[in-house]
Amino acid sequence: MEQKGKDFTDIPYFCVKALETGVNIIGVTRGDVTRINHTEKLDCNEVFLAQFTEHTAGVKVRGKAKIYTPYGIIYSGEEEHHG
Amino acid sequence: MEQKGKDFTDIPYFCVKALETGVNIIGVTRGDVTRINHTEKLDCNEVFLAQFTEHTAGVKVRGKAKIYTPYGIIYSGEEEHHG
Amino acid sequence: MEQKGKDFTDIPYFCVKALETGVNIIGVTRGDVTRINHTEKLDCNEVFLAQFTEHTAGVKVRGKAKIYTPYGIIYSGEEEHHG
Amino acid sequence: MEQKGKDFTDIPYFCVKALETGVNIIGVTRGDVTRINHTEKLDCNEVFLAQFTEHTAGVKVRGKAKIYTPYGIIYSGEEEHHG
Amino acid sequence: MEQKGKDFTDIPYFCVKALETGVNIIGVTRGDVTRINHTEKLDCNEVFLAQFTEHTAGVKVRGKAKIYTPYGIIYSGEEEHHG
Amino acid sequence: MEQKGKDFTDIPYFCVKALETGVNIIGVTRGDVTRINHTEKLDCNEVFLAQFTEHTAGVKVRGKAKIYTPYGIIYSGEEEHHG
Amino acid sequence: MEQKGKDFTDIPYFCVKALETGVNIIGVTRGDVTRINHTEKLDCNEVFLAQFTEHTAGVKVRGKAKIYTPYGIIYSGEEEHHG
Amino acid sequence: MEQKGKDFTDIPYFCVKALETGVNIIGVTRGDVTRINHTEKLDCNEVFLAQFTEHTAGVKVRGKAKIYTPYGIIYSGEEEHHG
Amino acid sequence: MEQKGKDFTDIPYFCVKALETGVNIIGVTRGDVTRINHTEKLDCNEVFLAQFTEHTAGVKVRGKAKIYTPYGIIYSGEEEHHG
Amino acid sequence: MEQKGKDFTDIPYFCVKALETGVNIIGVTRGDVTRINHTEKLDCNEVFLAQFTEHTAGVKVRGKAKIYTPYGIIYSGEEEHHG
Amino acid sequence: MEQKGKDFTDIPYFCVKALETGVNIIGVTRGDVTRINHTEKLDCNEVFLAQFTEHTAGVKVRGKAKIYTPYGIIYSGEEEHHG
Amino acid sequence: MEQKGKDFTDIPYFCVKALETGVNIIGVTRGDVTRINHTEKLDCNEVFLAQFTEHTAGVKVRGKAKIYTPYGIIYSGEEEHHG
Repeated sequence: MEQKGKDFTDIPYFCVKALETGVNIIGVTRGDVTRINHTEKLDCNEVFLAQFTEHTAGVKVRGKAKIYTPYGIIYSGEEEHHG
Repeated sequence: MEQKGKDFTDIPYFCVKALETGVNIIGVTRGDVTRINHTEKLDCNEVFLAQFTEHTAGVKVRGKAKIYTPYGIIYSGEEEHHG
Repeated sequence: MEQKGKDFTDIPYFCVKALETGVNIIGVTRGDVTRINHTEKLDCNEVFLAQFTEHTAGVKVRGKAKIYTPYGIIYSGEEEHHG
Repeated sequence: MEQKGKDFTDIPYFCVKALETGVNIIGVTRGDVTRINHTEKLDCNEVFLAQFTEHTAGVKVRGKAKIYTPYGIIYSGEEEHHG
Repeated sequence: MEQKGKDFTDIPYFCVKALETGVNIIGVTRGDVTRINHTEKLDCNEVFLAQFTEHTAGVKVRGKAKIYTPYGIIYSGEEEHHG
Repeated sequence: MEQKGKDFTDIPYFCVKALETGVNIIGVTRGDVTRINHTEKLDCNEVFLAQFTEHTAGVKVRGKAKIYTPYGIIYSGEEEHHG
Repeated sequence: MEQKGKDFTDIPYFCVKALETGVNIIGVTRGDVTRINHTEKLDCNEVFLAQFTEHTAGVKVRGKAKIYTPYGIIYSGEEEHHG
Repeated sequence: MEQKGKDFTDIPYFCVKALETGVNIIGVTRGDVTRINHTEKLDCNEVFLAQFTEHTAGVKVRGKAKIYTPYGIIYSGEEEHHG
Repeated sequence: MEQKGKDFTDIPYFCVKALETGVNIIGVTRGDVTRINHTEKLDCNEVFLAQFTEHTAGVKVRGKAKIYTPYGIIYSGEEEHHG
Repeated sequence: MEQKGKDFTDIPYFCVKALETGVNIIGVTRGDVTRINHTEKLDCNEVFLAQFTEHTAGVKVRGKAKIYTPYGIIYSGEEEHHG
Repeated sequence: MEQKGKDFTDIPYFCVKALETGVNIIGVTRGDVTRINHTEKLDCNEVFLAQFTEHTAGVKVRGKAKIYTPYGIIYSGEEEHHG
Repeated sequence: MEQKGKDFTDIPYFCVKALETGVNIIGVTRGDVTRINHTEKLDCNEVFLAQFTEHTAGVKVRGKAKIYTPYGIIYSGEEEHHG
């Protein structure tokens, strides 16, 4: 009865699960000048749910993590080895 | 005020079920400066339903939990061993 | 002819059925400071339908209950043993 | 006023059919302080259709009843014995 | 070529067909204080189409009737004996 | 005024076909006090298309007629004997 | 390649084809007082396309005609003898 | 003015193909008083695409023509002999 | 991978391909008084894409042409001989 | 200005691929008086993506080209020889 | 689990992949006077994602490139040789 | 401000995974004059999620990367060798 992971085009947030300790989720500002406005550090297996905001228009993920996006799951920090 | 009330019920929410005692759901602020604005602690098998708010744009889950999102279920605090 | 429990992503309320007496449904405030703003106690087999509001952005369920959400049914207060 | 009338017809509603005399449908206020604002008593086999309103954000059903919701039918006041 | 009775979630009115004379359709006010604001009496086989309004947020049906709602047909005043 | 005209064409309507002469379509007011605001009489086989309006929130059909609604066809004035 | 006659719930006008000369399409006003505001007479096989308007909230069809509505085709002025 | 332009392109239109010379497309006004505001004459095999407008709420087609509507094709000026 | 020609109900423009030289696309005004506001002449095999506008609410096509509309392709200037 | 930017990206566009050198894409004005406001010339195999604008409500394509529209591909400047 | 390339009618940007060095993406202004407002040059295998803007209503692609549009992929600078 | 926050989460975003160190994601301004407003450099296997903003209307990707768009995955910096 679970709502399966399909048609999530309109999801207003993304999720990141750290696959190692020390994953960095680095927010980049929306403004006229683009700069880092926040770095969230995750320990292994922590999960982070986040929205784009008035202040953040770009997010860089550094380190081994599983990123849940409308395009499917994207793995950072490693070669893709999932189907 | 009717219209206002309607807005609040339209905001998507996610659900967290704690799989051990001491799960932390840590809200991160939306504002110019990103800081922790609330930590909710869950005992084992408690369920938490939460919306992103005007004040919270990111949520970190620490500890063993089952997180219900539009992308499907994400397990925090442990290696994924579900299909 | 019943409308079956599918595609309920947009339902603006959730339902809780208590499976024991003494289930607590604890509302957490939306505001700048997050605090408990209401605790609803349910006896066994009572059903509660509730919306997120201008005042409530998070809800914790403590005790054995069946929670009807857009993600499906979540059981609080016990190990999941349903399909 | 046309537009206003349209809003009211768009608010979702749920239905309750009493399966015994003395079913209580207890409305809980939306406001800052949560309190009971109305109790509707149903005799056996009466049906009640109700909307969430500006004043009611939660509804408790006490006694044997069949509650029609977007999640399907929920039975209050008894163990579930339907498919 | 008839539009069959499916997917009527968004229908902004409900219908009641009286199955006996003396069916009461009792409107309950939306306001701060909940009180009866109108009682419509139906003779056997009369049909009533009604909307929720600025003044009516709840409707009780008393007596044998067939109620057409987005959840399907609900029979008041008798045990359900339809599929 | 263009926009206004568009609103009126978007309001749903229902259709009634009289199956005998003397069918009454009785409009009930939306206002604070509910009273009859119009009675339309149909001869046999006449068809009436009508919208709910700013003034009419309920409609009673008395006499043998076929009522076309989003729930399907409802027969007034007689026992249902159609599939 | 024609768009077939299905799913026409949202069509903002209806069509009438006269099946005899002297079909009357009688518009009834939307206002506080309901009165006839226009009568359109059709000769046999003429077709009339019309919208509900700021001034017309009800339409009566008298005489043999084929009425195209979101509920399908309704025949006025005669017993239904179509599938 | 951009927004205005967008509105006009969203208004639905219908198409008429004349099957004989001398087909009349007669626009009836939307206003308080209903009168003819335009008659378009088509020669055989000419095609006319038209919108309902602020000024036209009804359109009568007289003569042999093929009318393309959301309900399918309607033939004026002759008995229907198409599937 | 082409988007096939289906479900084009919402297309905000239509297309005309001239099948002979001298096709006329004649715009008729939206205003209070209906008059011709533009005539576009097409040579054989030229294609014209056009929107209804603030000024044009009706378009007549004279001459052999293929007209692409939400109702499918309509041929002007000749008997229909396509499927 | 954000909102404005969003509007512009929502306007539909069409694509033209020139199949010979010297294809002309001729924009016709939306205004009260219809005149040519721009001619874009394409060399063979160049592709042009264009929106209807506040200033352009009609576009004529002259020369051999492949025009991508919601109705499918339309070939200008030649007889259609595609399926 | 990838979201496949279907139903991209509403995508508010297009993508260009250069298949040779020196591809030009030439923006044409939206304004009253149509002129080139920007030329982006791409080296081989660079990818450009772009939106129509307040300033750009037309885009010409010159050189060998693969253009991703709601109508599918269009190849500029060469004969089409893909399915 | 709630409403504002909602707008920002609705803006679509794309994802880029660097397949080598030194991938450049170069934002081009939306304004009257088009110039580079930000260059984000990615190391191998880093993932970048980004929205178009009030300031950025075009994005060039230089170097080997996997770009997730509504059109599917586009590879920059190399010949396409995926299905």
